[in-house]
Amino acid sequence: MEKDKAVLSWNEGKIKTLIVETLRGLSQVLLIENAISGMIILLAITIASYKLAIIAFISSLIGTLVAQKGRADGDGLSKGLFGYNSVLTGLALFMFLSGPNDWIIALFGAAAAAILTAVMMFWMRNTKIPILTAPYILLTWSMLLVSYRLKSFQLSQDLVPQSLAHWKLNIKGEINWIEGAVSGLSQIFFIDHTAAGVLLFAAVIVAGWRYALFAVLGNVIALFTAYWLGGEHTLIYEGHYGYNAILAAIAAAYVFRDKKGGIPHLLSGIIAAFLTVPLTASLDTWLMPYGLPALTMPFVFTTWIILLVRKVLPGL
Amino acid sequence: MEKDKAVLSWNEGKIKTLIVETLRGLSQVLLIENAISGMIILLAITIASYKLAIIAFISSLIGTLVAQKGRADGDGLSKGLFGYNSVLTGLALFMFLSGPNDWIIALFGAAAAAILTAVMMFWMRNTKIPILTAPYILLTWSMLLVSYRLKSFQLSQDLVPQSLAHWKLNIKGEINWIEGAVSGLSQIFFIDHTAAGVLLFAAVIVAGWRYALFAVLGNVIALFTAYWLGGEHTLIYEGHYGYNAILAAIAAAYVFRDKKGGIPHLLSGIIAAFLTVPLTASLDTWLMPYGLPALTMPFVFTTWIILLVRKVLPGL
Amino acid sequence: MEKDKAVLSWNEGKIKTLIVETLRGLSQVLLIENAISGMIILLAITIASYKLAIIAFISSLIGTLVAQKGRADGDGLSKGLFGYNSVLTGLALFMFLSGPNDWIIALFGAAAAAILTAVMMFWMRNTKIPILTAPYILLTWSMLLVSYRLKSFQLSQDLVPQSLAHWKLNIKGEINWIEGAVSGLSQIFFIDHTAAGVLLFAAVIVAGWRYALFAVLGNVIALFTAYWLGGEHTLIYEGHYGYNAILAAIAAAYVFRDKKGGIPHLLSGIIAAFLTVPLTASLDTWLMPYGLPALTMPFVFTTWIILLVRKVLPGL
Repeated sequence: MEKDKAVLSWNEGKIKTLIVETLRGLSQVLLIENAISGMIILLAITIASYKLAIIAFISSLIGTLVAQKGRADGDGLSKGLFGYNSVLTGLALFMFLSGPNDWIIALFGAAAAAILTAVMMFWMRNTKIPILTAPYILLTWSMLLVSYRLKSFQLSQDLVPQSLAHWKLNIKGEINWIEGAVSGLSQIFFIDHTAAGVLLFAAVIVAGWRYALFAVLGNVIALFTAYWLGGEHTLIYEGHYGYNAILAAIAAAYVFRDKKGGIPHLLSGIIAAFLTVPLTASLDTWLMPYGLPALTMPFVFTTWIILLVRKVLPGL
Repeated sequence: MEKDKAVLSWNEGKIKTLIVETLRGLSQVLLIENAISGMIILLAITIASYKLAIIAFISSLIGTLVAQKGRADGDGLSKGLFGYNSVLTGLALFMFLSGPNDWIIALFGAAAAAILTAVMMFWMRNTKIPILTAPYILLTWSMLLVSYRLKSFQLSQDLVPQSLAHWKLNIKGEINWIEGAVSGLSQIFFIDHTAAGVLLFAAVIVAGWRYALFAVLGNVIALFTAYWLGGEHTLIYEGHYGYNAILAAIAAAYVFRDKKGGIPHLLSGIIAAFLTVPLTASLDTWLMPYGLPALTMPFVFTTWIILLVRKVLPGL
Repeated sequence: MEKDKAVLSWNEGKIKTLIVETLRGLSQVLLIENAISGMIILLAITIASYKLAIIAFISSLIGTLVAQKGRADGDGLSKGLFGYNSVLTGLALFMFLSGPNDWIIALFGAAAAAILTAVMMFWMRNTKIPILTAPYILLTWSMLLVSYRLKSFQLSQDLVPQSLAHWKLNIKGEINWIEGAVSGLSQIFFIDHTAAGVLLFAAVIVAGWRYALFAVLGNVIALFTAYWLGGEHTLIYEGHYGYNAILAAIAAAYVFRDKKGGIPHLLSGIIAAFLTVPLTASLDTWLMPYGLPALTMPFVFTTWIILLVRKVLPGL
């Protein structure tokens, strides 16, 4: 309550800055620093579910406020870098938990994500490798597993632990290629809604045509690679393989483009998107006994490896 | 045998120093550097089980001797910093293994713990974050799992691997709040004995009233948080959630108190104790397929995060 | 195809250098830098299976070419340090996968191993600890698990995930000590063939009698330690405990011999070989729910610990 009052006592400029940073936090989920994109993303989520949109906005706000109150170092705050992990954590916990307390736990998670973001930024400072969505992933996995031991955390029925010994891979079924074309981008925000998918694409175009190009490219490569390597058809068209590929393609080909020599950026993005497919399959298996989703970990691992390769193998 | 002779040939002063360092090693389990506290702890363990007390003392002695013989760097030796991981490893292996060889394996583990302590201290030197009980935990987990493949390691019947798929959380049953009040401190040493619990509290008071204050505070917060979040009632009053909270509260609020500005130490200790509860629940789940206990890992993670937050978010 | 032409257009000297580096890559699997040893190793693999030998040679070649094309730093290339992880990854994937695509995946893995080798070398540069076979292990584990989700990866029937809850240790059965004497060295290359084992030993002798001494010593210690601690008899004589001990003994006692003072090299090698046995047992258990083999991870962990101990505890 005191924090609310403090916010109100600020002058208008400060509130405006806070809103802009919060919206940038939303856009940073797609590696974009653009408040307009953030607003369109928020609109897209609202179409799919207004509750989810509220969680997303408040999560980004909480992340930004925590970093501001904590006096986080550098210019990450104004770029929205303390918002995106909070947005994703809030959304994931709200989606994968059920029961009356899920939104409280989600917002608590959003605050914790901002803190973990600051900690990991410091921790990985010397490597000069970005933390990406690692704080969100580690925190969400840990918080979802709490549900097995504390009654107030209720896990959604979708997450089912399975023994590898009893697992049978069944890839049968038609692929809905049209649904596949838009589902990848929506999956990042845990939504499954065609109009929302189109709006998310608009958010990407606003930020620059290159973002849009690599998003499409990443998704297409993931669809065909996963099909070619024999992934489960329902997972493919639901965007299960697409969302990590989109993020990895954008990251490798455009956002972290400090590349000199070696293979061109476009090829780099294609390779990144391709690699996320087996990595997603591998991580799905590692997590199967725990019933946890891979989230954006394949994107994180792929991007880290691509960025490190540029450092150590400049000829590639 | 040669080592024994060498010890005897020392002058009295050297033996006295060795005993003091060994007792300090015992007290460092509770983050205390005080030989008197160490002696009272030894007495408390003796009341519960004289065998356990012998293992605890010899483990600390072995840890100290290994570090001394190895010429470990710095002043850690005189502070007892090479004893506490050995004490805990010796106790844990003795408790969780059975069969005729358990004490040999326990003492071998104590020696290995001192070596791993030195290695991890070096490894984490640049982070300026203390290793806490991490060597003990990693070593004990690894050594307990040996029992599934080598006949001479016999696991206690208490440690049962369980599939998450078949796990049902049952929190029913009365809570014995009085037992809960003393069980937390004893659980650190794997004992379950009221008089011993009271003596351990005396060991804490001797070291300073602030230690005692934060020990009580940590335990109370863990009891109520675990109850409020819906933990299993038997686990709660047996101190399962309390012991990590006690250590985290002492560490965050008192031992590592190089805090300037931000939230006060007391609040910092309360938050630390609170955080250990969901972290304990999460770690219990991660380890369920292996049937391993969380040991003091929730305390380690919580304290590391709190200390890193102080560095990177000075406003918190 | 373009690469092939480029290779042919080189002058003879460059091709010769490439072949020598490729053979050194094969010998580096045994921590040896010697093209003659590499050639004998290739011959030994050929005796057991010519297909496996082709995979081994091409994998080493691919690893070397990737590092060359990527302009890897330092003199690792000429020493064959970009070949051995590729050799092992190629062999392991070819052995543990089945189906028509296994050799394509194996060679893709060999290229990825060289890249991961460069990344991990950079990443661990400051620790001054060698990466050993860590890239191979992490990559092979990850790629084997892909088989549970993508149809084109077909896992061999040998790798069966098992719940710890249903596991019964059965150590009954005779030990074939003679088979045990030669199986350790062959296991490193996933082969089980007496004449091949003898040839591998010749490859070791060519590199120096000390290599041979520590290989024998490591194997003998592993056989007796595993028997004494109660390991499964079939695993013991098949070399399951021996191959890590051989590598660890060679590494600790001879290859990384920058030791001053403390216990002598010979004892250091004996301790290393001994430690790999419980470590193998522990890792086998950790990986049991995933049905993954421990590969050479016990050797990696043991050697890392021994090398770090020399830094931090110079008296040992």
